[in-house]
Amino acid sequence: MLQTKGYAAQTVESDLAPWNFERRDVGPKDVHIEILFCGVCHSDLHQIKNDWFPGIFPMVPGHEIVGRVVRTGSDVKKFKKGELAGVGCLVDSCRICENCKQGLEQYCLNGSVATYNGRAKDGSPTYGGYSNQIVVHEDFVLHISEKLPLSAVAPLLCAGITTYSPLRFWKVGKGHKLAVLGLGGLGHMAVKFGVAFGAEVTVLSTSPSKEKDAKALGAHKFVVTTDSKQVAAVKGTFNFILDTVSAKHDMSFYLSLLATNGIHICVGAPPEPHLIPAFALMGGRKSVSGSGIGGLPETQEMLDYCADNNIVSDIEIIDIKYIQKAYERMVRGDVHYRFVIDMATL
Amino acid sequence: MLQTKGYAAQTVESDLAPWNFERRDVGPKDVHIEILFCGVCHSDLHQIKNDWFPGIFPMVPGHEIVGRVVRTGSDVKKFKKGELAGVGCLVDSCRICENCKQGLEQYCLNGSVATYNGRAKDGSPTYGGYSNQIVVHEDFVLHISEKLPLSAVAPLLCAGITTYSPLRFWKVGKGHKLAVLGLGGLGHMAVKFGVAFGAEVTVLSTSPSKEKDAKALGAHKFVVTTDSKQVAAVKGTFNFILDTVSAKHDMSFYLSLLATNGIHICVGAPPEPHLIPAFALMGGRKSVSGSGIGGLPETQEMLDYCADNNIVSDIEIIDIKYIQKAYERMVRGDVHYRFVIDMATL
Repeated sequence: MLQTKGYAAQTVESDLAPWNFERRDVGPKDVHIEILFCGVCHSDLHQIKNDWFPGIFPMVPGHEIVGRVVRTGSDVKKFKKGELAGVGCLVDSCRICENCKQGLEQYCLNGSVATYNGRAKDGSPTYGGYSNQIVVHEDFVLHISEKLPLSAVAPLLCAGITTYSPLRFWKVGKGHKLAVLGLGGLGHMAVKFGVAFGAEVTVLSTSPSKEKDAKALGAHKFVVTTDSKQVAAVKGTFNFILDTVSAKHDMSFYLSLLATNGIHICVGAPPEPHLIPAFALMGGRKSVSGSGIGGLPETQEMLDYCADNNIVSDIEIIDIKYIQKAYERMVRGDVHYRFVIDMATL
Repeated sequence: MLQTKGYAAQTVESDLAPWNFERRDVGPKDVHIEILFCGVCHSDLHQIKNDWFPGIFPMVPGHEIVGRVVRTGSDVKKFKKGELAGVGCLVDSCRICENCKQGLEQYCLNGSVATYNGRAKDGSPTYGGYSNQIVVHEDFVLHISEKLPLSAVAPLLCAGITTYSPLRFWKVGKGHKLAVLGLGGLGHMAVKFGVAFGAEVTVLSTSPSKEKDAKALGAHKFVVTTDSKQVAAVKGTFNFILDTVSAKHDMSFYLSLLATNGIHICVGAPPEPHLIPAFALMGGRKSVSGSGIGGLPETQEMLDYCADNNIVSDIEIIDIKYIQKAYERMVRGDVHYRFVIDMATL
């Protein structure tokens, strides 16, 4: 077993604190990665706090993992020692269902294995990237280009793919008006991808102060949703709204901003169900859809696209001892736009 | 002005009763139709009772109208005296917006004119098909084949197009599993179209007694949604659910029956908003969509398709004096599957 250092929440009541634990030995198809950086996702906090479902404790969060291969199992073909490597939200899946066969491991019909707060096929808990090393089957390890700043690549593994995947699935691009709702970790990546794909991108926000940031990210337009004049000008105009907000919000309002045949795509999940009047959908053949992360082939495609197009996340690198403070700032939206832990500080 | 006989609700409190009123004289582009049959839609009752919005009274309901042309305006090109003709839910629209130009008059951005309980462009109220004649601009009049039984064609003008349109828009057909929720006026047409388009059609119902009816309509399968064993067998299997129910129902349950990328299409509108958890959409890239009736070109296409494929509604012809009784039976689902008023009884 591999003696591993990390940060864990011992219970749902606890703050994160140093914790030593064991990872499995490197199997024939495993890649052993020294973790260099790990992004801090809002879902890390949701899971530590059991916001969505009862978690497995102690919990080592982190699913935006980048690092360097230190060892490969005897049968590993895709990776070599010394290469950069990444791990996202998944470390395994059934691999035999219809979805897995299509590279849609995120929708594995038998349940994929989450990078942390999940259970491997042998029933043992999974531990995430707030740690110095990880061992993952090569099929769930991604290639990372040496071209991009590694720390800023980390958030692509969750925030990146979560926004890239729906924009690709619904073929968002030239000729489309895309609104991005929420300008956080996911939202800022949605703006970057939307712009890169050729859509006209509008950021919707309650805070006029975010306009400068939105434009700096490449957004073409900015609408303050509490300004009735600005709102009137965009009623019925968006082909897509990419909704990254995980707090309660008024779906009828946002549906009124969609054009005929428009699609509101949820990638953030508020704890309460959305309230959606059927008439708000029927009067313009509108849809409310959802999308979850992305499969392994698409995640690799996204990483390659980012390397080719020089796209990374805007980040603030932190010492792991700063993590509780970082969570506090994340909750109040005080981050541009993703905290990334420098694992050298562990 | 044309002296017209009909049945109207004088107020939201009143039953329907005979009422004489005037229709406009036949203008150069108008078609004057003697109404022979008019279907009874659940929305007739919703509107008389102000269930959705405050209505315009006296109200003459009816938007599933078939009859014979008795006169045409001097500039009418599409119709001749003596031909069969139909009128659906719309009698006008702005004709200049992006949607109208595409034949999507049902989504007219400036507001289409409903066949009844609406206001014409001059502000005068519109009166529907529970009457002996109607005058409509030729662009909103449909050609009806002599091949099919006329009374059974009437419901195609609303129940037919409302189900045909989304099945065509989402290209439902061979290789798809389609579930139909609700086996009433809309639902029974959804089964017929779904089967005709080549989908595998399953009727979802709480009533085991409806299985025979569903199969008689052509449905391949029938699932009693209160039977956990039957439900377990269809979890995650449907590519589409066509939801014709206008009473409250549990969307999370139905979303769990959708396959990955599945679409739940609402054509019925419950008075309360649907409760839809984002996670129920994200875990399988699912969508909840809505669709409203259809545009004029598509309605004609549907009528022609029905003539070519011998598709009509299953109906019970009634005397107009039976209308209140018919409403009572409609509310308790005691109709197979549409009442149609024989206007000779007026």
